[in-house]
Amino acid sequence: PVVDKEVDFANYFCTYAFLYHQKEMLSDRVRMNAYYDSIFRNKHHFNGKTVLDVGTGSGILAIWSAQAGAKKVYAVEATKMSEHARALVKSNNVENVVEVIEGSMEDVVLPEKVDVIISEWMGYLLLRESMFDSVICARDRWLKPNGVMYPSHARIWFAPIRSGLVERKENDLEEVMDDWYNFVEDTKDTYGVDMGVLTQPFSAEQRRYYLQTSLWQNLHPNQIIGTAAIIKEIDCLTATVNDISEVRSNFSSSITMENTSLCGFGGWFDVHFRGRKDNPAQQEVELTTAPSKDAGTHWGQQVFLIHPPSCVTEGDNVSVEFLMYRSKENHRLMEVELGCEVRQSSGNLLPAFKSKFHVE
Amino acid sequence: PVVDKEVDFANYFCTYAFLYHQKEMLSDRVRMNAYYDSIFRNKHHFNGKTVLDVGTGSGILAIWSAQAGAKKVYAVEATKMSEHARALVKSNNVENVVEVIEGSMEDVVLPEKVDVIISEWMGYLLLRESMFDSVICARDRWLKPNGVMYPSHARIWFAPIRSGLVERKENDLEEVMDDWYNFVEDTKDTYGVDMGVLTQPFSAEQRRYYLQTSLWQNLHPNQIIGTAAIIKEIDCLTATVNDISEVRSNFSSSITMENTSLCGFGGWFDVHFRGRKDNPAQQEVELTTAPSKDAGTHWGQQVFLIHPPSCVTEGDNVSVEFLMYRSKENHRLMEVELGCEVRQSSGNLLPAFKSKFHVE
Ligand SMILES: Nc1ncnc2c1ncn2[C@@H]1O[C@H](CSCC[C@H](N)C(=O)O)[C@@H](O)[C@H]1O
Ligand SMILES: Nc1ncnc2c1ncn2[C@@H]1O[C@H](CSCC[C@H](N)C(=O)O)[C@@H](O)[C@H]1O
Repeated sequence: PVVDKEVDFANYFCTYAFLYHQKEMLSDRVRMNAYYDSIFRNKHHFNGKTVLDVGTGSGILAIWSAQAGAKKVYAVEATKMSEHARALVKSNNVENVVEVIEGSMEDVVLPEKVDVIISEWMGYLLLRESMFDSVICARDRWLKPNGVMYPSHARIWFAPIRSGLVERKENDLEEVMDDWYNFVEDTKDTYGVDMGVLTQPFSAEQRRYYLQTSLWQNLHPNQIIGTAAIIKEIDCLTATVNDISEVRSNFSSSITMENTSLCGFGGWFDVHFRGRKDNPAQQEVELTTAPSKDAGTHWGQQVFLIHPPSCVTEGDNVSVEFLMYRSKENHRLMEVELGCEVRQSSGNLLPAFKSKFHVE
Repeated sequence: PVVDKEVDFANYFCTYAFLYHQKEMLSDRVRMNAYYDSIFRNKHHFNGKTVLDVGTGSGILAIWSAQAGAKKVYAVEATKMSEHARALVKSNNVENVVEVIEGSMEDVVLPEKVDVIISEWMGYLLLRESMFDSVICARDRWLKPNGVMYPSHARIWFAPIRSGLVERKENDLEEVMDDWYNFVEDTKDTYGVDMGVLTQPFSAEQRRYYLQTSLWQNLHPNQIIGTAAIIKEIDCLTATVNDISEVRSNFSSSITMENTSLCGFGGWFDVHFRGRKDNPAQQEVELTTAPSKDAGTHWGQQVFLIHPPSCVTEGDNVSVEFLMYRSKENHRLMEVELGCEVRQSSGNLLPAFKSKFHVE
């Protein structure tokens, strides 16, 4: 797809130019601990090595890499955040090692290939933002044949959930539609124009907003009502853009909770720092964004509501068809097509559900 | 300035493509009544005439023009809202008169010149969105020499106000900064990186957000504490882009309330429908967005906070230097430079205030 760079800056990069947003990421303990541990428990990957940090933001991963003994770190950042990264590098006394380069990874030319590529490229549901494209581009151009990727692996998970949100959203939608009908009446009476013909498109617009857009949530583990499935696995060393631009998975999940309500699905990801087969991590580290009572992340989970909810119970089987691809209008956003069907343990099939969702 | 059309769509036009947003405008009674009255109380301007509606949105002004007897209405709309406008035109039985044209006004070619240009182009503080540029362009190309502009005149107003917002925003800012200091300490202790060097830029970013961005408010008339001044007058028939791309005004305002607090300024606009000198309105109509107890509009007022507030009283004189120009990064947004000084009736001068603001 042809990406208009200026539009991409207006839509995407703009948020990263705010320290406020970088701080949000820097305050995510789960994220920070995972990257910190991955580096400092695997110093052999960094000590005396050359490193490329794709999208350095504030510069944090580049600075840690230097502190872990890297010989040279190239820290590439597309936005003006690069200037703050440069200041931070300097005030932390690693300016002899870390070179901050302002530019798109796709355009930057390095003087050498590197031993390690480190990057925090993960968006909601792993792939939103499509930033891994830039990591792939960097890898194919700048990673030595025996180089290591940080993180090395990534997975997307999906599980059935219960949630009060369906009802809430359905109520919101109903209220908005009631208000619309009043508006149509008023406009006819007061201003002599009949807006009735717009009822259908307005309703579609609002349904899309309330029911067909996935929601950011920090789910409680007890909202997960069935077995979770891995719907995508990525080897960061070998994945191509083609491999990640579509995620298709048919899977089934067993309900593990008695007499509950299937209200939708939660999606999340984890990434692993394992080094590579012939140069493995000394200590493997995992960063998971799964539902958790006290180790939530700023990524939360993405929730896809199904409506109306279905009554389900332990032993019921939910079969799911999942398809995710990039939005035509904005390659950094995703569209999801989701179908599901519940087979009760009696063998009885509940009415199937099928809908499109937008991950925005 | 060179405007990237794609970026302009991503930043600006996108919101207008939602019926939800059009409905907000269509539910603004003050706005609707003014345009409705301006048309139906001045049918002589429409009956048997050709009309151009610049930015027709849902098509409302075009439909009214047809209902008022127009022979032909060209209804130009840049976004896909044009399709809804077309449906509305049809279902209101004016498709023989109203022709909906999807496209930017700047690009559209009409088969004839028109007698009337009608448009609802006003943004916050009148000029935000810079949509009047498109009306000027339409006027210079498509209005007959004796044509009429709807509205015909516009003014921007500015007045000193009191408000609890300064304190609130100052508190918010303080909280955010306290949190920042904790973050800096944490990051040093836990992750070995000293973020201190970013304190100044973070603080600047947050001050900009909390204190140097104008705020949307529906002010109560009793929050106005001094005489209001007109800081710009526009004759829609003759104004050029040059005339409106900068607004500069030095004025003074007398405080009209006893023992109160000067917390900032409120800015708003009004527009008038007067026809033209040689073809005047039969009944002049005004649309005002001034602070009002029960005739508020979706435009509200724009509030510029000054901090700290000054104690003022009846008879004090506030002299103000106001300058507004377009943002370099986005020609539809504005930057304001505001200076003010209070001379008490005793002759005593209070410390002057000067700041930049962003109208976003
Ligand atoms: N193609 C590209 N080239 C350069 N920088 C990019 C990029 N795509 C995304 N980025 C930048 O990558 C950053 C991702 S956020 C992560 C920031 C930092 N590494 C940290 O872990 O805290 C953003 O600052 C974004 O502007
Ligand atoms: N240069 C341009 N060309 C065409 N349409 C434009 C335009 N600039 C703004 N618009 C459109 O003008 C509309 C302004 S909002 C007003 C809509 C309608 N006339 C009403 O009064 O309810 C938006 O729908 C916007 O998309």
